[in-house]
Amino acid sequence: MADKGLLITFEGGEGGGKTTQIVRLRDKLTKAGHDVVVLREPGGTVISEQIREVVLSAKNAGIAYTTEVLLFQAARAQIYREIVLPSLKAGKIVLIDRSRDSSVVYQGMVRGFGKDLIEQLNEISTKNTYPDLTILLDISVEEGLQRRADSGTSNRLDMEDTDFHQKVRDAYLQLAKEDSAHRWVVIDANKSIDEVDEEIWTKVSVKLN
Amino acid sequence: MADKGLLITFEGGEGGGKTTQIVRLRDKLTKAGHDVVVLREPGGTVISEQIREVVLSAKNAGIAYTTEVLLFQAARAQIYREIVLPSLKAGKIVLIDRSRDSSVVYQGMVRGFGKDLIEQLNEISTKNTYPDLTILLDISVEEGLQRRADSGTSNRLDMEDTDFHQKVRDAYLQLAKEDSAHRWVVIDANKSIDEVDEEIWTKVSVKLN
Repeated sequence: MADKGLLITFEGGEGGGKTTQIVRLRDKLTKAGHDVVVLREPGGTVISEQIREVVLSAKNAGIAYTTEVLLFQAARAQIYREIVLPSLKAGKIVLIDRSRDSSVVYQGMVRGFGKDLIEQLNEISTKNTYPDLTILLDISVEEGLQRRADSGTSNRLDMEDTDFHQKVRDAYLQLAKEDSAHRWVVIDANKSIDEVDEEIWTKVSVKLN
Repeated sequence: MADKGLLITFEGGEGGGKTTQIVRLRDKLTKAGHDVVVLREPGGTVISEQIREVVLSAKNAGIAYTTEVLLFQAARAQIYREIVLPSLKAGKIVLIDRSRDSSVVYQGMVRGFGKDLIEQLNEISTKNTYPDLTILLDISVEEGLQRRADSGTSNRLDMEDTDFHQKVRDAYLQLAKEDSAHRWVVIDANKSIDEVDEEIWTKVSVKLN
């Protein structure tokens, strides 16, 4: 930790509380004296946010799957080169709301592009960078969608049906299960915000020591 | 030709007259009774034009090379699925101002990403579609840049130096030389617009018969 930062990604379907938990973790880490950078994908830089607008805008419903795949990777390439990699090099802790595994799950596994093709693109966009820790906030599809609806922050991807979201959940759990690098942690996000927060802190603390 | 269209791409550095010659060819083909679709890359569809705006806007000078590579491919994936492939299937003649070879030259060969990586991405974005004819409008760097400056249509890529444009020219000529599919035609664009127009028509006519 002395001369290299820590990359922590938050993954999972909609409504699992990624955004909320990232803010809480950032506050705890900052309080503990760490230099923390918080990002989201797609987005996080001026150029990546422009790409996010193209890929997530509800008015672009006619976007081809392949275009979607490449746009997510383009936004990723920019944020890694502009912020993630320099921050890690400077010893900072980088928290990202979705990264390479979102592409593997949504596009590789659920859309059917294949994990291999997506991982090949991930290698290019991240310069072969893997998270030190990936926190999967696992929540039942019904509860997740309900929370999203209540929050009023739906986007184009939320318009997919329940079956789609179930496949996303299953794919995430499968990835975490196959995890040979021991970077995945599955947390039951049906629990209260405070309980989830505490579990995350326990897992992150291990990486900090 | 009866049940399959024809894909013709125009390639070359700046100022070679691609736009002018495409309009002329379109008019001749239409007059001869053909159904013609004219496109440009990056762009050509509502979504691809949004991507074009991100990748070519002078205010996005901080764009990473890898981001640029992926954005061009994303725009390509969209235009091929939305317009190029359906048009070819419908028997139309499709003329594109820059396509897969621009990525190979500018990014693969001049930027140094390597031809293989770019061709791999081209396979994904074009669904393995190659032009039936690729017209290289070859012009000296000095003359090309002078024409661009006179036309007042410079964009971010024109800001590169002369050495860059010389490398682009050399790369194009090398690709045309290595052409094993016999799809490349090199035309001396230092000649008059009428002379170039006539040469192009001769080459296209062969493909129409």
